[in-house]
Amino acid sequence: MFADLLREGSWLEASIDTAQPDRKPIPKPDIRRMLVPMGPVVVFAASNFPLAFSTAGGDTASALAGGNPVIVKAHSAHPGTSALVGHAISRAAEKCGMPDGVFSMFHGSGATVGQALIKHASIKAAGFTGSRSAGRLLFDLACQRDEPIPFFAEMGSINPIVILPNAMNERPKEIAGLIAGSITLGGGQFCTNPGLLLIIEKKGYSNFLDELNDAISTIAPSVMLNEKIHKSFETDKHSALNQKGVKIEAVSRHEITGDNLAMPTLASVNAASFFRNSSLSDEIFGPYSLIVKCKNENELEDIVGTLEGQLTATIFAADKENEDYGSIINQLKNRVGRIIFNGVPTGVEVCGSMQHGGPYPASGDVRFTSVGTSSIKRFTRPIAFQDWPDYELPDELKKSNPLNIWRWVDNYLTKENS
Amino acid sequence: MFADLLREGSWLEASIDTAQPDRKPIPKPDIRRMLVPMGPVVVFAASNFPLAFSTAGGDTASALAGGNPVIVKAHSAHPGTSALVGHAISRAAEKCGMPDGVFSMFHGSGATVGQALIKHASIKAAGFTGSRSAGRLLFDLACQRDEPIPFFAEMGSINPIVILPNAMNERPKEIAGLIAGSITLGGGQFCTNPGLLLIIEKKGYSNFLDELNDAISTIAPSVMLNEKIHKSFETDKHSALNQKGVKIEAVSRHEITGDNLAMPTLASVNAASFFRNSSLSDEIFGPYSLIVKCKNENELEDIVGTLEGQLTATIFAADKENEDYGSIINQLKNRVGRIIFNGVPTGVEVCGSMQHGGPYPASGDVRFTSVGTSSIKRFTRPIAFQDWPDYELPDELKKSNPLNIWRWVDNYLTKENS
Repeated sequence: MFADLLREGSWLEASIDTAQPDRKPIPKPDIRRMLVPMGPVVVFAASNFPLAFSTAGGDTASALAGGNPVIVKAHSAHPGTSALVGHAISRAAEKCGMPDGVFSMFHGSGATVGQALIKHASIKAAGFTGSRSAGRLLFDLACQRDEPIPFFAEMGSINPIVILPNAMNERPKEIAGLIAGSITLGGGQFCTNPGLLLIIEKKGYSNFLDELNDAISTIAPSVMLNEKIHKSFETDKHSALNQKGVKIEAVSRHEITGDNLAMPTLASVNAASFFRNSSLSDEIFGPYSLIVKCKNENELEDIVGTLEGQLTATIFAADKENEDYGSIINQLKNRVGRIIFNGVPTGVEVCGSMQHGGPYPASGDVRFTSVGTSSIKRFTRPIAFQDWPDYELPDELKKSNPLNIWRWVDNYLTKENS
Repeated sequence: MFADLLREGSWLEASIDTAQPDRKPIPKPDIRRMLVPMGPVVVFAASNFPLAFSTAGGDTASALAGGNPVIVKAHSAHPGTSALVGHAISRAAEKCGMPDGVFSMFHGSGATVGQALIKHASIKAAGFTGSRSAGRLLFDLACQRDEPIPFFAEMGSINPIVILPNAMNERPKEIAGLIAGSITLGGGQFCTNPGLLLIIEKKGYSNFLDELNDAISTIAPSVMLNEKIHKSFETDKHSALNQKGVKIEAVSRHEITGDNLAMPTLASVNAASFFRNSSLSDEIFGPYSLIVKCKNENELEDIVGTLEGQLTATIFAADKENEDYGSIINQLKNRVGRIIFNGVPTGVEVCGSMQHGGPYPASGDVRFTSVGTSSIKRFTRPIAFQDWPDYELPDELKKSNPLNIWRWVDNYLTKENS
């Protein structure tokens, strides 16, 4: 993905304003701008993605693609995988003749190694995927440096799904199946796992709940990534189930036959109880979701209005039904990076149009994404050359456009000379 | 400028990945992304730009252009100008049928009103132009919020100019005239005012210094914006002139004939003394500049290596002379947002290719600019619509491209349908 992007070149945002030496009252200089690397980037590997968001994951790929050296803080949950992947990167870098130091990796605790890295004066940016507590701690350290640095933290989300009444009434089995599958996909360990389901108690809702409970009950428990994650899931789930007004709707009917297995679990609460207890909005990392039963549209809108920033929100609607819920949908749009229609949030497409990020606490900077080609923008900065000699300009900005990339020339997008 | 940008539409970074329902192993959904407003933006007006960086300045214009309501914290240095301009904006907003609250303004102290604004939960971003101390204080508050917000602070710069030996030897009078004019332009109150001149004591340097001293001596003192700025200038200048090894090279020969007049002043120091005293890199706001005399290329490179982040750096070079100083020029590039060749840093062209920002402390986030059309990017965020009904999509993302804007469709830049 990044290889095509790099060859194609428009991501550099090359922009040229040619000189107007005769302009009155003062001449206009020649100004040419493009994105360049920021400097060494620290990548904090995620516990839940030993491959896609760790040593050679999206943060590393986008930081390297932007031209920056990368220092990975390996996650203690999978040191062996990290080492194997790290060696593969080092060998590849050597084979390609990359400079020494383009990639390195540290093992060790976040409290010592991780914090030392984020505080190091040579580090110019960092990427993180993990818990809100760890993300915020590192974010604060990044901001408190003598020279604060951009720190992109993706800190999880409960990814609300709103199932509108007609959709629920017309397609209960289909929607229940999709949602149950999404809640339990990968043991519920995706950042985009739906932890909150919002419904209105209208015609068909109890049938829909039966279908959803059935679907959850039939799904086998899945092995979680490690003992620590499994233990947290059990603790957090039991704490949630003990909150006032929360009742269990469904638990997998399968038996536990091994270690670190998480039982798919569905709970419910009414809107009034949900309002009174902000802990019910906390992420529970694993195959668990909470249904909030609203009496009417107003209660649903009020619930949506209390939600924190999210990576995603999802609407299930019957034909044109969404038109009657414009205000609720607008409230959702204000709170998310990606909004999905009649689908599920899990399965994050890695493509140019993906947005994986969102208002705090889903991410630490709502202006960027950590998935897709735009993720490179987190780790690059613009530089402008004024009246610079053509032969000394980077190829991307030379008059003849030798790389044949798209550039803005005098506010016109073109591949022509400048 | 922003009007053309908004009509043209490509700044929205509209990007579309069309569905591939038959893709194996899983179907690809339809994903469409664009930039949307972030929410209410606070603009901290600058003391040194009553118009261009205050009530209706670049920050306000770019935040409004991005679709955000703006709340201006007026600067106490020019309350009357702020009020006049604020009324003009309010009348214009009313005339155009903009929603109530699209623009508002507060007067009052930074410590009370300014801090209350940056802490307010409804505020989603802020822009600031001013001193490093005030900028950092507000930056810290923005980061410490429960929901941290992007805070773009432009905090000044000493904008080093390197005059290479052959240039100095071949064109002493011309270069001296340009630099003296830049040091004293607008009473030295531009963010891009050159406060540091770096030279090597090679053939012609003493003649060049004579020319520069002559040029400075003939320039009349200029009225500073207000009493407080003038007083700071005098205090800071005297403190700098009293540092060990610093000597006065030239002071305007004109007489002081009124209030708040600042005398153009040039001082010098050798590289060894400059190294030992970090206070000599502090910005002195006004028509003052410090020449650092280096014995050789190595001393010059070492000086450049100690510089903090800057808005700009400038090189004066004779034909091809720059080729012998590649390492120094690279070090400068790593420290600046804009690099200028045989020109002066003052006169910031407002255009699409401008970069006004730089590594800390020149700005608080090196990835953005506060001048030029790209400044809008500070105050917008991406949102992705997945499998969203076409009729409910913003026009920018509809299949038929009714606004006829440039969009990425399946990784191809086009104005065609999608």
